[in-house]
This record gives sequence, C-alpha cells and structure tokens, in this order.
Amino acid sequence: MAIVRHEANKVYAKVVEANGIVTTAGIVPADLGRDAKGQTAEVLAEIDRLLALCGTDKSKVVSATIWLNDIRHREAMNEAWIPWVGGEANAPVRACVEAKLVDPRMLVEIQVVAIK
Amino acid sequence: MAIVRHEANKVYAKVVEANGIVTTAGIVPADLGRDAKGQTAEVLAEIDRLLALCGTDKSKVVSATIWLNDIRHREAMNEAWIPWVGGEANAPVRACVEAKLVDPRMLVEIQVVAIK
Amino acid sequence: MAIVRHEANKVYAKVVEANGIVTTAGIVPADLGRDAKGQTAEVLAEIDRLLALCGTDKSKVVSATIWLNDIRHREAMNEAWIPWVGGEANAPVRACVEAKLVDPRMLVEIQVVAIK
Repeated sequence: MAIVRHEANKVYAKVVEANGIVTTAGIVPADLGRDAKGQTAEVLAEIDRLLALCGTDKSKVVSATIWLNDIRHREAMNEAWIPWVGGEANAPVRACVEAKLVDPRMLVEIQVVAIK
Repeated sequence: MAIVRHEANKVYAKVVEANGIVTTAGIVPADLGRDAKGQTAEVLAEIDRLLALCGTDKSKVVSATIWLNDIRHREAMNEAWIPWVGGEANAPVRACVEAKLVDPRMLVEIQVVAIK
Repeated sequence: MAIVRHEANKVYAKVVEANGIVTTAGIVPADLGRDAKGQTAEVLAEIDRLLALCGTDKSKVVSATIWLNDIRHREAMNEAWIPWVGGEANAPVRACVEAKLVDPRMLVEIQVVAIK
C-alpha cells in the first residue's frame, strides 16, 4: 500500500497518509509572540489545513497528543481546543503532558492521528 | 468507516475505535493519595474497563506510552505493570519517559493502542 | 487478526506487528559513552534491525517520536537523523520534545511506526 507524504523535506513530512490513516507531525506555532490560547489556535488552524490536504477533517480525528512547555497553560490551551473540537461527537482521545519544546517561546505542540 | 467514541465530552473521549484500532486517552489516576505502584494499578484497571467497552482486552494491546512525573518511579510502576501484562505473549511495545502531568500528585499517565 | 510480537519479555516487546502496522518500542542506546549524534546513530541502526524483523524498512516509516534528555541536542541528533532518513521521499512525520529518560546518560529515545 502506498504512503503519501505531504510537504516533506529532508527532516520530516508535515502529514503522511498510509493504510487510510493520516498522521500529522508535531505542529508548533510560527508566531511566538502570542499567548498559549493564541498559539494553540494557530496550531489547530495548521492541522485543519494538513487534514484537508489528505481529504479529511477534524471530525475524523482519532487521537491527539499535546505537549505544553508549562502544564499550567492547559486551561488557556483548552480555550482554543474546546471550540475547535466542536462538541463531543468529534472528541478524540487526548494525552496532554509537559515537555520543553524546540524554542522556549513555543508554548504548545500538537500531533493528531485521523482517518480518511 | 465509522469512528466510535466512548465516554466523550467537549474536551476528549476516553477511548475511540476506528479502522479496527482502539486508542485510549492518556489515563491518569483518580486516587492521588496512592504511591506509584497503586496509581499504576488504578490506571491499568481503568484501561481494562475501556478496552472491554470496545470488545477487546489487554492481550491485544499493541503499544503503550507511559509518562511518569519522576522517572525514578519506574520500578514501582513496573511492579503493577508486569503482572498486568501477564507474560511475554501479551507484551506490547512501550515508551516510558518523564513528564510533568496535570496535577503534581499524579505520578503516572498511561495511553494504549490495541486492536479488536 | 493476529498480533506478532518480536523479542518480547515480561515488560515489553521490541517491535509488534498488527493489522499491517509495525510499531517499535521506544529504543534507547546501549553505549552511553557516545554523544547525541553517536547515540542516535546506534538507535537508528537498531530500528533498522527491528523493521527488518517485520519485513519492512525505513522507507515505509510513517511517524517517529523522538525524546531528547536536553532539547539542545536536537542539532546533533539531526546530524544522524537526516542521513538515515535519506531524503524527502522517505521522510516520516516527527515529533521531537525534551524528556528525562530512564538513565541520565541516555540522550535520545526514538519510537517509530511503519507499514509493511
């Protein structure tokens, strides 16, 4: 079965399709001047774009992994997360833990797995 | 193919079935007064319950991710983990790293992927 | 559908096949005297070996999770990672975050998911 790699470079691909499963990279924000809610909103908009590249959308997300550079940002992250999910009919499983990210100004990184 | 989401709320689902794959949320203990072994036992009992909701069980777990709020709790976690796994015929792949969790009294969070 | 567990013990399996998907454990280096580039090279060689056990190889890797015990080792890790990937045609999605690992001398742990 073919693997389809989107927006790949020598380090990683932004999103990969294989066996009907769509997996995004861990997505980080580009605008590091925003707060955790703003950074989360930017990351989720990028995830929407990547899912659309694969012909799927957030209603088909199965799981999400969320890394926060400070776990105390969880409530601010959820302020962007909850409206993005859009209700329990779309809710994926989730793991949310603290981890230092590539740049100390990055407050959140999110990776999702979806089906097509 | 349909996605089945169990015990979902506006933030996340406890376990999701899609394409024959069952993925739990990152499960944390409710009783935060126990030690790492006790918290692990509680988490694994909850995972058993979630797998059963999907018509599967621990003998079909493919992978597990374990976050410990202090990596030095690994041995205590393993004291509950090893009997739960129940022998090499059931052993999933595993990644176990340190991460701060939502509440500093939470010593362990576990997420598993299984097949049906 | 059968699950095939390779090199399993009572704690975990090194790699598991299920539903056409191959998942490795979080692989850590054995030689803890090397720098982050050297440890990464050792881990990736072990991943090559595990993928081969399952009849697949690095050209079919879908996703990779990389934990570094110090995120500042990312560039050194990439010096081994980039040649291993071997170009954008093979590039998996990737998440790379900081986490303390089982032994403080372990600088890197990598887990991959591939298809057959």
